[in-house]
Amino acid sequence: MTDKITYKGDFTLPGEAGYEDLTLELAGKWGADAIRDSDGTVLSDRIISADYNIYSTICLVRADNEWAKANRDKLQQNYLMSDPVLAENDKVEISLLDGFFREQLEVNTNDDPKTWWQVFDRTNGEEVPKSLWTFDPGKGTVTINKTKKWHRYTVNFLAYRIWEAISMYNHTTNNWGDREHQMPVDPIYPETQKFMLGFLQKWLDEHPKTKIVRFTSLFYNFAWFWGDPAIQRFRYADWGSYEMTVSPLAMRLFAKDRGYSMTSEDFVNNGTYCSSHNVPSERLLEWMDFMNEFVVSFGRKCIDLIHAAGKVAYMFYDDHWVGTEPYGMRLKDFGFDGLIKCVFNAFEARLCSGVQGVKTKELRLHPYLFPTGLKGEPTFMAGGDPALDARKFWADIRRGLLRAPADRIGLGGYLHLVRDFPDFVECIEQISREFRTLKQFHAGGNPYTAPLKAAILTAWGKMRSWVYVGHFIHGMELYEVTESLAGMPVDVSFISFSDILEHGIPKDIDVMINAGRVGTAWSGGEHWKNEKILEAITGWVAGGGGFIGVGEPSAIRHSGQYFQLAHLLGVDRETGSTLSNVKPEYTLSEMKHFILEDVKEDIDFGKDIDQVYVIDQNTSVLSEKSGSPKITVKTFGKGRSVYMSGFRYTPQNTRLLHRSLFWAAGNQEDYMPWTCSNIFTDCAFYPDIRKLVVINSSDNAEKTKVYASGGKVYDVSLESHGIQIIDL
Amino acid sequence: MTDKITYKGDFTLPGEAGYEDLTLELAGKWGADAIRDSDGTVLSDRIISADYNIYSTICLVRADNEWAKANRDKLQQNYLMSDPVLAENDKVEISLLDGFFREQLEVNTNDDPKTWWQVFDRTNGEEVPKSLWTFDPGKGTVTINKTKKWHRYTVNFLAYRIWEAISMYNHTTNNWGDREHQMPVDPIYPETQKFMLGFLQKWLDEHPKTKIVRFTSLFYNFAWFWGDPAIQRFRYADWGSYEMTVSPLAMRLFAKDRGYSMTSEDFVNNGTYCSSHNVPSERLLEWMDFMNEFVVSFGRKCIDLIHAAGKVAYMFYDDHWVGTEPYGMRLKDFGFDGLIKCVFNAFEARLCSGVQGVKTKELRLHPYLFPTGLKGEPTFMAGGDPALDARKFWADIRRGLLRAPADRIGLGGYLHLVRDFPDFVECIEQISREFRTLKQFHAGGNPYTAPLKAAILTAWGKMRSWVYVGHFIHGMELYEVTESLAGMPVDVSFISFSDILEHGIPKDIDVMINAGRVGTAWSGGEHWKNEKILEAITGWVAGGGGFIGVGEPSAIRHSGQYFQLAHLLGVDRETGSTLSNVKPEYTLSEMKHFILEDVKEDIDFGKDIDQVYVIDQNTSVLSEKSGSPKITVKTFGKGRSVYMSGFRYTPQNTRLLHRSLFWAAGNQEDYMPWTCSNIFTDCAFYPDIRKLVVINSSDNAEKTKVYASGGKVYDVSLESHGIQIIDL
Repeated sequence: MTDKITYKGDFTLPGEAGYEDLTLELAGKWGADAIRDSDGTVLSDRIISADYNIYSTICLVRADNEWAKANRDKLQQNYLMSDPVLAENDKVEISLLDGFFREQLEVNTNDDPKTWWQVFDRTNGEEVPKSLWTFDPGKGTVTINKTKKWHRYTVNFLAYRIWEAISMYNHTTNNWGDREHQMPVDPIYPETQKFMLGFLQKWLDEHPKTKIVRFTSLFYNFAWFWGDPAIQRFRYADWGSYEMTVSPLAMRLFAKDRGYSMTSEDFVNNGTYCSSHNVPSERLLEWMDFMNEFVVSFGRKCIDLIHAAGKVAYMFYDDHWVGTEPYGMRLKDFGFDGLIKCVFNAFEARLCSGVQGVKTKELRLHPYLFPTGLKGEPTFMAGGDPALDARKFWADIRRGLLRAPADRIGLGGYLHLVRDFPDFVECIEQISREFRTLKQFHAGGNPYTAPLKAAILTAWGKMRSWVYVGHFIHGMELYEVTESLAGMPVDVSFISFSDILEHGIPKDIDVMINAGRVGTAWSGGEHWKNEKILEAITGWVAGGGGFIGVGEPSAIRHSGQYFQLAHLLGVDRETGSTLSNVKPEYTLSEMKHFILEDVKEDIDFGKDIDQVYVIDQNTSVLSEKSGSPKITVKTFGKGRSVYMSGFRYTPQNTRLLHRSLFWAAGNQEDYMPWTCSNIFTDCAFYPDIRKLVVINSSDNAEKTKVYASGGKVYDVSLESHGIQIIDL
Repeated sequence: MTDKITYKGDFTLPGEAGYEDLTLELAGKWGADAIRDSDGTVLSDRIISADYNIYSTICLVRADNEWAKANRDKLQQNYLMSDPVLAENDKVEISLLDGFFREQLEVNTNDDPKTWWQVFDRTNGEEVPKSLWTFDPGKGTVTINKTKKWHRYTVNFLAYRIWEAISMYNHTTNNWGDREHQMPVDPIYPETQKFMLGFLQKWLDEHPKTKIVRFTSLFYNFAWFWGDPAIQRFRYADWGSYEMTVSPLAMRLFAKDRGYSMTSEDFVNNGTYCSSHNVPSERLLEWMDFMNEFVVSFGRKCIDLIHAAGKVAYMFYDDHWVGTEPYGMRLKDFGFDGLIKCVFNAFEARLCSGVQGVKTKELRLHPYLFPTGLKGEPTFMAGGDPALDARKFWADIRRGLLRAPADRIGLGGYLHLVRDFPDFVECIEQISREFRTLKQFHAGGNPYTAPLKAAILTAWGKMRSWVYVGHFIHGMELYEVTESLAGMPVDVSFISFSDILEHGIPKDIDVMINAGRVGTAWSGGEHWKNEKILEAITGWVAGGGGFIGVGEPSAIRHSGQYFQLAHLLGVDRETGSTLSNVKPEYTLSEMKHFILEDVKEDIDFGKDIDQVYVIDQNTSVLSEKSGSPKITVKTFGKGRSVYMSGFRYTPQNTRLLHRSLFWAAGNQEDYMPWTCSNIFTDCAFYPDIRKLVVINSSDNAEKTKVYASGGKVYDVSLESHGIQIIDL
């Protein structure tokens, strides 16, 4: 890096009482301007009195366990589906919580089961009449009478959560032993709201040194049901699901507001719950909207208190973020001053950066200062290499930050753990310098972005911009595609099928991407039976649009096709019903296609889609595996399509996608300016300040040419994970 | 082989005029007792006058092209779906035969299109009102008005077949040049029947030397639509489909007989036609029954003439076999004396052998005496090795013949082609000896069969016993499973879902097998939503039955499960809708399980099912790949289940399946008697004559132990593809 960045700040350090010297030493070294506490740590007077902004975490729903214990009927709830029980005769007894973590979940015996619960025969899908089952609150069982032999029965029941999910995770991960379990209370009750506002006001009064109030987060956590530890630790985890917002009161308020009632099965869905991977029903979307309205309106009251106390309010965009919807319409109504996202990679950096309606975006870097990582792997303990972890995460995050800015970075966890890892301390110092450099450059003006706008089409659209159920799923095509896109010098937006139905395809889109497996929200599922969608996209491509399909784009078995846009893509997939239809033979295209120009190794899409076949003679097969096309291209009217049988985020595949965007848009001539010859490197040109940033995301030293506009070429050498700044 | 078989006979030789010496020489060498003609060859007087049974082929539907030319309105027909055409504005013109082979197919302009055809908007699945389209017979086009822009339109139309499919295949394969194309006439018309019976009577009168009249075959060929040769040779091929039985008259007769009308879409099904891979509708099954009734009743009239002429009648169980249904209820009503099946492997030998109601079963061996094989590979030409081909086919066929007898073997094609392949001539002599040995042994009494009865459950059941659309599809799980079963010393039967609904699970079944991909007729598709099926099978296994599931057994997305028998199998499959449900971890079972005892190499199931997960703690995972179980076992009540993620016919997998049957039946102690230690070898014991036959199906010499009953063990050495006979 040639530019010396000397300014400090924009860094949030986790302080720790008992380690005052370390805290202040590292605050200086890393250039911190704010010191925070974490779940499980406190700040001492010496730290608080030092010259830093004090940044205090608060989680109102688990803030006062005494109040929670005194108001157990106001704990948060959710619907669960009991594990299926097979009827061996005409009566079945179901122990509701079998298989679940009884330290997390407790059957709600306060609200009338006959009003709120449902019992199902899952073999035939029919609800069991309420007269045929009884609940025994003492035993926690439901007995079903007149069962059909060998049918599977389940109960949808309400359970209180008696251990707040994130503190439960932190507790078990950090071995907090017999520390009292924190319980989450539900702000849907007026009494809870009153308590919370009172608690917050008192807390503000008691924290005069605190400048930044950091909500971890607001009220409802993403869905996370744990299992009986003897069987499995986790049962259900969905970073975008509203399962944990449910209560009888909320359902009553919804019914009053929206004119119809949700049922337990709207949330349970045969035990698949409201998975973000599945196409949301209209009812679920309305529930989400209703809860978002509530969370914003009550959240605003909390933030008003903070502002009145002369402090600012930040929200952690993880944990209890459900209901806040940073990509929804109401975020600005909160009045939040900042948003903090914990990030592993480029698309999560973009996820944070892209939010509108909040001034300050802060990235929480990985690894956390915890002994182990999210998958239980060692980090700050014997066997861990947190400096290498941090460098690799940063190399990925930095790709995203080339394109879109963040305002701050920070760490979380227990600072004393870094003492044994001096190379980690050095690494964070370097990362801080790079971050501040990029922030400065963005402040000087937007980086060059090619004249190409891509839109990702999913059932969620803008609401789940850059969001793919994050940490839990890898190998999903769209997850991988999005990570590739997050570092490209192109515009990326997100649209839904409803957007197309309501407003048509936005005029400024050049290329539409649909990526995912059949039936998922990412591919689109039942939406592809809608003729209006097919008309719109087909007409748009015929008129010159570009369409990139990955995996099972537009897939649903319907009307003899599987890919409903097979006519655009030129390929379809054999799934069994057309086995007797002989497939046309194809020949592998011999010409080196524009999109393949940087492909040097075998194309690896990971576990991709097989049994793809060509449906017309105008389809060019550019790559294949075992007789199944992997990459095809086709012109359609004035437009073009590209099909890829899968996708993994690799440098070569990223380049393939990058070129595909320009080819699909019929705009190859705009591809070259401000790209790198070496696929392991990326560059960004900031025209207003004439700075060129070149980064190497690989573990090896790399040389690259940078193609500037106007034909000029720069040769750049970079260390492993290195960065170079060139003044032009 | 220790037993010298000296008798001759039971062999059908294809003679050829012009090659009389060769014909008679080989008839002697191979021990022929019958000499046949083939499509494209004739027998000369010298051959006919030699002391052999003359065996003459006849195919009445293509017997007299003059009559066919004079009665073009009585040619056979079928429905076709035109290739989809995308509407670019409000009018679409579809050229009906585009993409089809115009030398095979001709639009039927005789029967009113508005009565018999249907036009569909395939984008929304709706039929286009008849008032909106017009047919131009001169151009062979349909014009559709008021089309919706960007919708796909197709026409279901009737086409005459103007080139009979098998002679078309023989013609093009053997380069018959400008020989006149034979056209198939339809016996559904009384005039055709009258002509055919007259032709047959005349033919019988003119063939006094003919002893055996061999139908190739009766009236309707399996479905085989060819494509525009510039694009693709074949369009649709299904060895079990009734597509080619359709005509307006047959549909009228059906409506009169069954009380409702079939529509074009009943046959076209969105262009998937009536694929045997798909679950048949009740309407299709009734059509098949109706056509079978017709074929048997008119076929009987033909056979009566043959018998009256003092001759016998054989049918070729290929080509025009559709409507004869050898595993249907009416076969015995034909009065056939013999059935001939061309066979590649063991299950096809069993397919022929298992037919009831016909006395003589004859196997037509491969390779045919053609220059090239079915896939165009060289056989009797430079580059071919027909002796090796014959030995390999025979080794596979022989596995089936150990268990079930055939009465005759024979060849087909052009005899002069063998002159350059003396090793082929020797090979056939050896095969003939082996065949006669096995036939003799079966005549002495049934071979030992273990006390285990397996039933394969499909949507077709008994009607498609041993039939899996034969030559066209490999890699289908059930195809591979069936080939393995065909050589095992166990009873095998075939049942359908309807059988279970009507009669329950047969009392004598020990193990039920369900194997195939979701949605196919083999796995069962929609049948798995039927609670009665689930009740019956679950109860039966709980009571002690064994269930083996392969691939996607009982699969259909329904009520939160994918495998509807997940509770029996202990596993289910992730297909996208339960991605947020965390899967229980499992540990690979460490004990060497009974079913794995002969597994020495990695288990290779080919392209098997992934993303399988364990659903309960009582499931033992015996083998896995990338975290997805490949083989699991589970006890359920008094019964047991085995799951395999796929199957390929290999010696090791065959052994695995063999052992699985006995384990699933809870009957391991009966596994051992009369099995071989070496998985490349098989044996059969004929207790009544105290003969033990041991065969080696591999290309290498092998040694094996044979485990007799009572603990006795025999050591046997075998040459490649060798056979040993041991007197006990």
